[in-house]
Amino acid sequence: MCRGVAFDLTTSNSNSQSVDHKLNDLIRQMTLDEKIAQLIQLAVPFYEGAGGEGQITGPMDSLGITQDTVRNSGSVLGMAGAQDVIDMQRTHLSHNRLGIPLLMMADIVHGFKTIFPVPLAIGCSWDMELAEKSAEIAAREAAVSGVHVTYAPMVDLVRDPRWGRVVESTGEDPYLNAKFAKAFVRGFQGQDLSGDYDRVAACVKHFAAYGAAEAGRDYNTVDLSDRQLREFYLPAYKAALDEGCEMVMTSFNTVDGIPATGNQKLMRKLLREEWGFDGVLISDWGAVKELIAHGIAADESEAAYKAIRAGVDIEMMTACYVHHLAELVERKEVDGSLIDEAVLRILQLKQKLGLFDNPYRAADPEREREIVFSDAHREAARELAVKSCVLLKNEGVLPFSRDRKIALIGPFASNHDVLGPWSWTGSKDAAITLAEGLSSKLGDQAKLVIAEGCGIETATEAQLQEALAAASEAETIVLALGEHTDMNGEAACRADIRLPQVQLELLRELRALNKPIVVVLFNGRPLDLHGVFEKADAILEAWYPGSEAGNAVAELLLGDANPSGRLTMSFPYSVGQVPVYYNAFNTGRPQGAPDAQVRYVSQYLDIPNEPLLPFGFGLSYSEFEYSEVSLSSPVMTKEAPIKLTVKVRNKGIVAGVETVQLYVRDMSGEVVRPVKELKAFRQVALQPGESTEIEFILREEQLRYYHSDLSHESDAGEFIAFVGPNSSTNTRLPFRLEK
Amino acid sequence: MCRGVAFDLTTSNSNSQSVDHKLNDLIRQMTLDEKIAQLIQLAVPFYEGAGGEGQITGPMDSLGITQDTVRNSGSVLGMAGAQDVIDMQRTHLSHNRLGIPLLMMADIVHGFKTIFPVPLAIGCSWDMELAEKSAEIAAREAAVSGVHVTYAPMVDLVRDPRWGRVVESTGEDPYLNAKFAKAFVRGFQGQDLSGDYDRVAACVKHFAAYGAAEAGRDYNTVDLSDRQLREFYLPAYKAALDEGCEMVMTSFNTVDGIPATGNQKLMRKLLREEWGFDGVLISDWGAVKELIAHGIAADESEAAYKAIRAGVDIEMMTACYVHHLAELVERKEVDGSLIDEAVLRILQLKQKLGLFDNPYRAADPEREREIVFSDAHREAARELAVKSCVLLKNEGVLPFSRDRKIALIGPFASNHDVLGPWSWTGSKDAAITLAEGLSSKLGDQAKLVIAEGCGIETATEAQLQEALAAASEAETIVLALGEHTDMNGEAACRADIRLPQVQLELLRELRALNKPIVVVLFNGRPLDLHGVFEKADAILEAWYPGSEAGNAVAELLLGDANPSGRLTMSFPYSVGQVPVYYNAFNTGRPQGAPDAQVRYVSQYLDIPNEPLLPFGFGLSYSEFEYSEVSLSSPVMTKEAPIKLTVKVRNKGIVAGVETVQLYVRDMSGEVVRPVKELKAFRQVALQPGESTEIEFILREEQLRYYHSDLSHESDAGEFIAFVGPNSSTNTRLPFRLEK
Repeated sequence: MCRGVAFDLTTSNSNSQSVDHKLNDLIRQMTLDEKIAQLIQLAVPFYEGAGGEGQITGPMDSLGITQDTVRNSGSVLGMAGAQDVIDMQRTHLSHNRLGIPLLMMADIVHGFKTIFPVPLAIGCSWDMELAEKSAEIAAREAAVSGVHVTYAPMVDLVRDPRWGRVVESTGEDPYLNAKFAKAFVRGFQGQDLSGDYDRVAACVKHFAAYGAAEAGRDYNTVDLSDRQLREFYLPAYKAALDEGCEMVMTSFNTVDGIPATGNQKLMRKLLREEWGFDGVLISDWGAVKELIAHGIAADESEAAYKAIRAGVDIEMMTACYVHHLAELVERKEVDGSLIDEAVLRILQLKQKLGLFDNPYRAADPEREREIVFSDAHREAARELAVKSCVLLKNEGVLPFSRDRKIALIGPFASNHDVLGPWSWTGSKDAAITLAEGLSSKLGDQAKLVIAEGCGIETATEAQLQEALAAASEAETIVLALGEHTDMNGEAACRADIRLPQVQLELLRELRALNKPIVVVLFNGRPLDLHGVFEKADAILEAWYPGSEAGNAVAELLLGDANPSGRLTMSFPYSVGQVPVYYNAFNTGRPQGAPDAQVRYVSQYLDIPNEPLLPFGFGLSYSEFEYSEVSLSSPVMTKEAPIKLTVKVRNKGIVAGVETVQLYVRDMSGEVVRPVKELKAFRQVALQPGESTEIEFILREEQLRYYHSDLSHESDAGEFIAFVGPNSSTNTRLPFRLEK
Repeated sequence: MCRGVAFDLTTSNSNSQSVDHKLNDLIRQMTLDEKIAQLIQLAVPFYEGAGGEGQITGPMDSLGITQDTVRNSGSVLGMAGAQDVIDMQRTHLSHNRLGIPLLMMADIVHGFKTIFPVPLAIGCSWDMELAEKSAEIAAREAAVSGVHVTYAPMVDLVRDPRWGRVVESTGEDPYLNAKFAKAFVRGFQGQDLSGDYDRVAACVKHFAAYGAAEAGRDYNTVDLSDRQLREFYLPAYKAALDEGCEMVMTSFNTVDGIPATGNQKLMRKLLREEWGFDGVLISDWGAVKELIAHGIAADESEAAYKAIRAGVDIEMMTACYVHHLAELVERKEVDGSLIDEAVLRILQLKQKLGLFDNPYRAADPEREREIVFSDAHREAARELAVKSCVLLKNEGVLPFSRDRKIALIGPFASNHDVLGPWSWTGSKDAAITLAEGLSSKLGDQAKLVIAEGCGIETATEAQLQEALAAASEAETIVLALGEHTDMNGEAACRADIRLPQVQLELLRELRALNKPIVVVLFNGRPLDLHGVFEKADAILEAWYPGSEAGNAVAELLLGDANPSGRLTMSFPYSVGQVPVYYNAFNTGRPQGAPDAQVRYVSQYLDIPNEPLLPFGFGLSYSEFEYSEVSLSSPVMTKEAPIKLTVKVRNKGIVAGVETVQLYVRDMSGEVVRPVKELKAFRQVALQPGESTEIEFILREEQLRYYHSDLSHESDAGEFIAFVGPNSSTNTRLPFRLEK
């Protein structure tokens, strides 16, 4: 074992050039096989000291790799737990000729042990500070447990609720997604990753446009024009990189006919050359070898060839590089410098994380016990959960008083399945159920009766009878419905996006009792709410709220907190309407235009064009009034921004938070422009009767868009600014851009 | 009136150069206003002598044009009827200073008075000869009624059954669509349009990619990569032009962000320059002015500017050209030569149609009475209708014997609404209903009892009781269900693609009687057949069969003819699966691959990936057996095509027609390649017990595709040929292309 090299690299305050010089020295000492092994990423069971007996006939055999490769590999997937990490790293270093430490990576997506709401829910908070804080806490818990890099944030723009991974995104808006991308990267990485062992490196994913999977079926073809890609899908990835995100993960899908993982135009030309990204590019799980199934590689060798040339540094969980790069270099089909570059980037990241200095970094079993799932962290999770819930309907039944007799019914009444996908490091058992949350908030336990009513997808007559009995004693029914976690997330796509039939039946039976019904939804995608919306008196969209689920929801139901979440993804009228999103184009025959014909307009015969609930929508227990809307000038120039002023008053009887949203429409462009685009928003907390004046500055830069030649410019002409509580606002302020 | 000019142009056998010379002379005599007026197309009510009293305060006023413009206009929309055309033309010529005749255009899409099956049904015939014949007959009837140009064929590739206009297309396959495009153009135009007054000019539409409307909502945004556009959507338009199609119509949608009607890249660069199209380009109805609603033109002037520069010669039903082209020319923003070019193209077409020689052309009231809706034409319509029906299911109940007692039930039992959209010149009353067809075929009328059962979207208890009574007397129930015509076609999109609920209820009630049920479907799109498929013993997809509907369907039900239609558009499992089409890409994680994981594959949780019924599918009363499949060589080169041989035997007890289909898969390309592509097919008629050997020659040209640089080439490598009765065939013959 040669720890000297590692030590040598850590001489403090070396500038990056001299570090690179030393890393290059190290690379020169590596054999070609060692270099190539550095590029593979394997899961935990491959490693010695990780309970990995009999590996030769297990995973290594199935992948066709040797123990040598494992001992020279560069990074591990799915590793967490301070002592385990320390043990694994120690074992690894004892075998690794040049003492190059392993990079420990894991999916820490919305919390480590302290689970925050799922990203789609965090999106609905519109709260960048809390979003950042959630990532900071996730990073702190993960780091002390030995994780160096998280495969997050996922910033894919999403428009199709059939796709299971919409739950991992912050929604359908490029502006908001970009803001969240930055907030998450800041939270994970902090200001200075090298100096702050409580942070982890972030890996933005999935580059690019994974969210546009055709027919909402995971991994399916993506086909977009370059302009559409740049205008809508790329901004959030770019924002993450602008914030210093260390890594990028390739997406599984094609981008203009070529899978991202083998796409030179996307990776070399756009990501590396145009955007100047010099961090590590990692394939998604198995995505290098999947170039064969995609049909752009005839075999593993061609897959390796295409991926390394595209610029993929780390091959996750397949061994095309290990099997074929050496021969490709020997045959001079791949330039050895490509491999050196990839190794250098990986070593640079290890260096930046301080691993050559301290290969265990923040891993510390004792501190782990202290920090992880601490009260302070859970408090932050509760706060964000409160802010993430969206009140979809309220016919005067919420909040209800503690005096009311409540029947809490439904498959999510006492269900711990409230963490959502990507919470493998969390503990379901430790998550607060709605029953627990309500019960602890209500003084008098006799006021609360609980019944399951049905399962998520199955029901018995006994369950129903129990629920009806419980409901008959109550004054208000709280009905907790939803999708189980596995109905969301990766490879969890649904062609039918309604609640399962048994739950709709349960609601129908309870409705017949003629008592107020509050539906609380635990789910991961916009649903077709027919069968719920017209039957419930109130609906609270809780998503998967995380570890503090029950406490957060109970606070909202009882009025201890006031709902302030706003949807960041449209709820379609039905699955036959998808994709439906607010920032669409007008078409040549828009419905509802003053001169529109009755029939020959862009519409369906059987449903409206509008979603059931639009982007930006969410109710409050307060009521907000908009007035005195004005622009400082009807004319904007490049030098002279304009100011939009609006007065917002809380005319309700409780304090509340309003999310004031500013949209702009470009009336005429070189290409078609969305009917509305979110340009800014402001969250204001107002006491009853309080009012405030909000100012937005609108600048020429905000009016730029991608033209047909892919130039990013604004055009002189007419615009309309819209301000209001959601994307359906019709408060219009026309202005003109002059150039 | 100056008829001299017109006469001068007709000197026989002038070569095209000297004709153009004379046309240019004529153009030189035209004022700018006269030229611009030549570019507008107006509907019939604008014209004198067409029942057009009070026009100044009517349509002309609403369009803001003068009588002078109308008198100098170049073409009419929606005109038919020999005497009316003669009268209108005569009146027009009496007012037109230079004696330039009007071009009479009309939507003659699948027949004139003799209505053939809707195009999607014709597609299912896979019969190019009959398709051509249908267009030839439509042309003959239309021409004698005074029509010069038809707005057909519509060749938009379609993948989304929500879109109402799928009924106007021949389906989802570029190869088949291209073949039909050619057949229709040949049928309409014949070999030599100028010498054959029984033909009309064809106008291929809608250029381009109108069928890819997002969310299946008519007129909605289309966004595709250039490569996808060329690979799938453009071939059929190109095929029509290769066949000499005289006109092209712009589509309503955007193509890469710019509406087709103002899209220079699409029209000038691709259509005119790259493809060399020098015929007339016409906007769709109102599409020039709609550039404003699309948001790429601030006003009518900019709309005119963009359309004329894109190369649109005729502006249909809006007056942006008339209002603004003159000032645009004066301001030198538009080159006057663009207007001269457009006028020249229109005059060239009039010249080619012989209108300068005889402005009434084939219009002849006497011959019209003789030709139109003749027995021979109706016989052709019946023949094509028989070939267009697709047998979707048959559990041994079809055909049924004339001895059986039949209850014919359903809203399409005695419904004349069997012509489908775009049959305005046809006569519903003259169309044969299924009741009429069955009744005339069955000797003994006592064997047939008829009941409506329900309306298309409404039902009464009395209707149901009548149906149950009728059914109780019968041995077999024929249940005629479907969509009314207005649920299909332009602006007729459905988010729910099931049959209306009342019809599903009727089927359920009848099913309870436990008698054989044959469902006959009259509709215009692939439906979600749940609620039908599992309940019916047999299903015959009749589409809208046209004038001879009832006769054709009755023949099939009784076994006088044997079904041979094959679907050219997939029937989705449910609307949540769309778009679903056979020539899709494999993805990196295909379902069912040998090494596929259980969960992490491209699939839905709740439905299969496969459509309910695949492209190419259709049953017969015969049974066909495939055997002795072989390739002449496992290696193809550019110089050496390979031959695929297959033996097909009719092992049934009746004569039948099999459509033998050849698909190819390119296992690895520079871009992803479809899992199957139709490359050839052969229809063979076989007597019971008869067998035949079929040969397909496969050439290198057939393996070419669009690469990322848009070059159209083949790649050396592995391929698989598949042969069988539909696109789900798994009879694989691997071969290799060597270069």
